[in-house]
Amino acid sequence: MVPVAARHASQEPSLDEDALNALAAVLQPDLEACNRTIVARMDSPVALIPQLAAHIVAAGGKRLRPLLTLACARLCGYGGERHVKLAACVEFIHTATLLHDDVVDESLLRRGLASANAVFGNQASVLVGDFLFARAFQLMVEDGSLEVLSILSRAAATIAEGEVLQLVTQNDLATSEARYLDVIRGKTAALFAAACEVGAVVADRPDAEAAALAEFGMNLGIAFQLVDDALDYAADQSVLGKTVGDDFREGKITLPVLVAYQAGDPADCDFWHRTIETNEQNEADLDRALHLMQGCGAIRMTLERAQSFATAAKAALAPFPDSAMRRALIEVTDYTVSRAR
Amino acid sequence: MVPVAARHASQEPSLDEDALNALAAVLQPDLEACNRTIVARMDSPVALIPQLAAHIVAAGGKRLRPLLTLACARLCGYGGERHVKLAACVEFIHTATLLHDDVVDESLLRRGLASANAVFGNQASVLVGDFLFARAFQLMVEDGSLEVLSILSRAAATIAEGEVLQLVTQNDLATSEARYLDVIRGKTAALFAAACEVGAVVADRPDAEAAALAEFGMNLGIAFQLVDDALDYAADQSVLGKTVGDDFREGKITLPVLVAYQAGDPADCDFWHRTIETNEQNEADLDRALHLMQGCGAIRMTLERAQSFATAAKAALAPFPDSAMRRALIEVTDYTVSRAR
Repeated sequence: MVPVAARHASQEPSLDEDALNALAAVLQPDLEACNRTIVARMDSPVALIPQLAAHIVAAGGKRLRPLLTLACARLCGYGGERHVKLAACVEFIHTATLLHDDVVDESLLRRGLASANAVFGNQASVLVGDFLFARAFQLMVEDGSLEVLSILSRAAATIAEGEVLQLVTQNDLATSEARYLDVIRGKTAALFAAACEVGAVVADRPDAEAAALAEFGMNLGIAFQLVDDALDYAADQSVLGKTVGDDFREGKITLPVLVAYQAGDPADCDFWHRTIETNEQNEADLDRALHLMQGCGAIRMTLERAQSFATAAKAALAPFPDSAMRRALIEVTDYTVSRAR
Repeated sequence: MVPVAARHASQEPSLDEDALNALAAVLQPDLEACNRTIVARMDSPVALIPQLAAHIVAAGGKRLRPLLTLACARLCGYGGERHVKLAACVEFIHTATLLHDDVVDESLLRRGLASANAVFGNQASVLVGDFLFARAFQLMVEDGSLEVLSILSRAAATIAEGEVLQLVTQNDLATSEARYLDVIRGKTAALFAAACEVGAVVADRPDAEAAALAEFGMNLGIAFQLVDDALDYAADQSVLGKTVGDDFREGKITLPVLVAYQAGDPADCDFWHRTIETNEQNEADLDRALHLMQGCGAIRMTLERAQSFATAAKAALAPFPDSAMRRALIEVTDYTVSRAR
């Protein structure tokens, strides 16, 4: 379980996160209540569960997804407290998927991605993820809205579909951009969309507003994942604390790779086949990959694509009148793209 | 994923399964509708999902848990069709846990339990399990009963707790019998209890009847797991198609092991420490384990314990008047214990 948690915890706040911090500040009492709910409800008489969950839930997470639920509920004029518990559900589902992402196969373990101190390893990650997932549904049942249950159970199924699709396209350079977008819509954006839509549902707003917020979240989620995929080849470690090249070493199919592969000459294509498809890599390969991407503008193109999804996200907020919460959501959307600059 | 699926598929019907077959026959139209629902609702545009799910859902499963939901609904005089979809939910949750049980760590892979043809291995098992789990909740939301959602989301959390507790007690001979019973209550019996309770809820019966059926299912589930644990050291392969010694090779803590360990002299205790705790085994060890168990009556004691839970299960059916369905449930309970003879 260590790689994900470490990556998570290492994303320390930076100047670029001002917008997210501003949103957290506006929502401070809600966010604190949400954090209390998270800690209280991940408890279990089986001590390993809160221990392992705390490792990932409590350690340095930006709480972006639950913040979206809290913000969208307030944007819709909601004055109650139900959104706090539902924001915790969203974070539990997110954490469960992080824990399950973390399950690695023997081949990956051999490549040195797993830590030796992962005593319970894969099995504990899977089971604690299952617990948090089940607990999320228990919280939703306590809330009592079948509409919320419908939105989040559909999102959970879509996330799993996106993750399986990612597995199927792994190492496959013939993956189309459309299919890559299907993957990130499923594995990332579906939960962003659901997190936002739930805000309108607790506020009992018309379907059109719920749909607008789902649209906002979906586009924001796609932009977020595109930027994340670009950062994996471009992050300034001193600023973002992110390691360059994780995706490359895993042979993950992301837009920067697809763009560089499609722009490459035969020698470049051989390089990509060897490093991504066959996953045979040596120390100089990451530098060459970065060089090829720079040469064809793959990172710039990926960020431009992210920018257009961010623009679509902001446009989806049109039905909502100007307010501090609307401005904060727009700033977070801008931050999502600007963090890569 | 092969070991679990193979174990599953290899449990061919035998004479001992007459009672279960009789229950399936009484409920044939319901069971066929449930099977159709299972196949229809495990579908996904991501082809690997139905492929992998079919491997385990459609292959040779006895459908014991969904049969309990169907039977308990009919026992309660239910005349509708909702129980069919909910029985499919129960099977999806069960299948998800089988897929997640199947996730093995590197150490286990090295011991030769995983098959070379497990191309997608752990990750696919986890993600398809997640999909089925999410899909189960989608089906419950379609059904629309918050009470059913409450029962099955609580059961799902309890299953995860039981599985984590099993992981924590793995290889630990100091595990008490009470703790072992906590493990099997969680990992196995909680879903039996929920499957039965749901039958009373769809039939809109009083709480006392729902509680009685939950009690029936809980005791039946404990008996079932105790017999399963006994069979792992006693099954006649030609009759049950089950391999002796799987639990032993995994160093799993089950009642036969605990009884034999506690009855052992110092030399025996050294043997159990080496084989179960340190998990250092050679070819002759299984025979010695079986011999020690026979000497102290560990299998007999385990089966007697199972018998007393089966008796408690049948007693829990007292509130229900005699009927063909009640007799079929009693026969299935008797079969659960008798299959070990």
